[in-house]
Amino acid sequence: MLTLDKIYQAAFALKNVIRPTNLIAAPGLSNNCEVYLKPENLQITGSFKVRGSAFKISQLSDEEKAKGVIACSAGNHAQGVALAATKQNIKSLICLPSGAPISKVEATKSYGAEVCLVKGVYDDAYKKALELKEEHGYAFIHPFDDEDVIAGQGTIGLEILEELDTVDAVVVPIGGGGLISGVAFAIKTLRPNVKVYGVQASGAPSMYNSVKKGEIEALKSVSTFADGIAVKSPGENTFYYCSNYVDEIVTVNEDEISTAILTMMEQQKTIAEGAGAVSVAAVLAGKLPIKGKKVVCIVSGGNIDVTILSRVIERGLLNSGRTYQLCVELSDRPGQLYEVSGIIADCGGNVISVHHERASETKDINGCYLRIVIETRNFEHISQIREKLTENGFRLV
Amino acid sequence: MLTLDKIYQAAFALKNVIRPTNLIAAPGLSNNCEVYLKPENLQITGSFKVRGSAFKISQLSDEEKAKGVIACSAGNHAQGVALAATKQNIKSLICLPSGAPISKVEATKSYGAEVCLVKGVYDDAYKKALELKEEHGYAFIHPFDDEDVIAGQGTIGLEILEELDTVDAVVVPIGGGGLISGVAFAIKTLRPNVKVYGVQASGAPSMYNSVKKGEIEALKSVSTFADGIAVKSPGENTFYYCSNYVDEIVTVNEDEISTAILTMMEQQKTIAEGAGAVSVAAVLAGKLPIKGKKVVCIVSGGNIDVTILSRVIERGLLNSGRTYQLCVELSDRPGQLYEVSGIIADCGGNVISVHHERASETKDINGCYLRIVIETRNFEHISQIREKLTENGFRLV
Repeated sequence: MLTLDKIYQAAFALKNVIRPTNLIAAPGLSNNCEVYLKPENLQITGSFKVRGSAFKISQLSDEEKAKGVIACSAGNHAQGVALAATKQNIKSLICLPSGAPISKVEATKSYGAEVCLVKGVYDDAYKKALELKEEHGYAFIHPFDDEDVIAGQGTIGLEILEELDTVDAVVVPIGGGGLISGVAFAIKTLRPNVKVYGVQASGAPSMYNSVKKGEIEALKSVSTFADGIAVKSPGENTFYYCSNYVDEIVTVNEDEISTAILTMMEQQKTIAEGAGAVSVAAVLAGKLPIKGKKVVCIVSGGNIDVTILSRVIERGLLNSGRTYQLCVELSDRPGQLYEVSGIIADCGGNVISVHHERASETKDINGCYLRIVIETRNFEHISQIREKLTENGFRLV
Repeated sequence: MLTLDKIYQAAFALKNVIRPTNLIAAPGLSNNCEVYLKPENLQITGSFKVRGSAFKISQLSDEEKAKGVIACSAGNHAQGVALAATKQNIKSLICLPSGAPISKVEATKSYGAEVCLVKGVYDDAYKKALELKEEHGYAFIHPFDDEDVIAGQGTIGLEILEELDTVDAVVVPIGGGGLISGVAFAIKTLRPNVKVYGVQASGAPSMYNSVKKGEIEALKSVSTFADGIAVKSPGENTFYYCSNYVDEIVTVNEDEISTAILTMMEQQKTIAEGAGAVSVAAVLAGKLPIKGKKVVCIVSGGNIDVTILSRVIERGLLNSGRTYQLCVELSDRPGQLYEVSGIIADCGGNVISVHHERASETKDINGCYLRIVIETRNFEHISQIREKLTENGFRLV
């Protein structure tokens, strides 16, 4: 059983492993409540995961430590286990699916782990890890469903209460549920009046569904770019703690997560990964009863691939009227591109790309389409450009 | 004359205006020296500029304060003056060129300033600001060439010495030179052995040229995406302090600045604007004699437009082999696109965009070009895909 004692013990054990991540006031994120970020994206390895792994490893027997540890993960857990083991002079072996991004493989190696690339997907890597554990007697470090791991993550709850003892609510991302189990247990035990809210991606609502149904229900598939919380099934322990210590679980969609990442970049100059941003997404999207409250959002990690970040920005620019794709129907005669581009320039639109194509057969044989992507200032600016083109006789599609 | 006394006085005056920006260890940024960031991108208003403005404004007479202040800027100085004036209950008017990004105009207004949009470029807005100053008796707050402003920026030097008294070198972005003048004066007066290095964008090397030549030399034009340091001419004061208190000035190019921004995002989860990143760029590009030293890079600001950030990421992905544009010459017969896309898929390349076009007249009349942009893992992955295509008889252009 989890005890407060164990979480305090974890806090002590983690002292020389983790970085302090002091709360950051984030007045730009909301105008109807007082938001603070708990920036675990700035934690060593870029996520909170190192806490649970490091405490779990510290609790192993000397015999287990001598044999080394094994884990399976394509993400933050891998880096957490690798660093935690290395800091305690213990050998670690991480199984990753062979399609894992090179950057994650390299990061895991850089923290001192040996990496075993397994052909296939996560489940194949997981199976391989269990085989290797049996064969060599390694200790298996579960990413969430383990009470020592949960106790390690719970240290975040202690830190929040210590630093902001007037907090009203804590908002926590949920994947497998290890983080929120520890945080909720710590907070509800010490200060039952503080609300603890969980947030899942609507494309991976395993804990949300399970708690609602009153029993663990595994999803057949998950779909979200917040890969850190794309978990098919809660654990038994984490299901128990979420059912008993969490006030409410809500979900956020991909656009809400994107907007949260972009808003944190612009307002706070900080980078969160999808999983790390769901707490802020829930606040921004008004999904929680927190008006007028002091709210801490745990930003659980910052390990987002820049390729994905770049798509998040593009999506965000479109959603906020800062880029726009025009499609103009032209008649196939000289001077049309010249005229359209002149109108756009007059309006202060900045052309990014141009695509000029003959119309398909269903249209006038002399017709063509001009697709222009432009940088705009806002939706008003877009309307202005559209109106000007229409006034000049161009048909927008 | 600038005195240490004045800088200490500024530090005292700024206590209730600025946020603390503690140094951040950045081990991922260099493996041959010990790098720390002074994160003024996390400063209130997103840049250090508020320091100089707030101290300058605090030194005005009651009569001047009653009339209000005026400034001209399309960027960080505008926001700094606006906030500083508002915090001291003083009216502020900011002249901006009418083409300034909406986001900057809105930010300036949000800090309580009145905004005057002037048709034209920066120089026109500057002229207008001087006219309004004459007409209404406002106090003009210069962005850098003013000893009170310089003293305010110099408080950063005191903070660095206070927090890391074993520092060997401080690296500072230079635009007009206000920041480095204050920092260098503070540091060299207290600890002459600590090196102070300045960094300019190679597209706007006004201070670099002037110090080299031994006299102020204005540039005819400047060209860099680091708009915060795109300054045509040093000030008289700042030229004097840079000539006498700075050890060396170096320049970095646009690619080096982009790489620095991207590296800070990936390694430190923090967002710097172009001007803010030149200090880190100089370290990463090996432009400074700092091997084995303890080095503080001042990250002067984080107000980068996400549109530009998105371009920086794209450039960075290309430069590091994580996206690649293939151009394949095809003969115009069925099945070719199928075959090429099969090879790319087998190699694990992820297609982003496809462009299929007839060859121009100079080529075989049956030829076409297929341009495919793909996400790749690294340069090795790119070579692998290219080889596989070549082996299968496709000609790459």
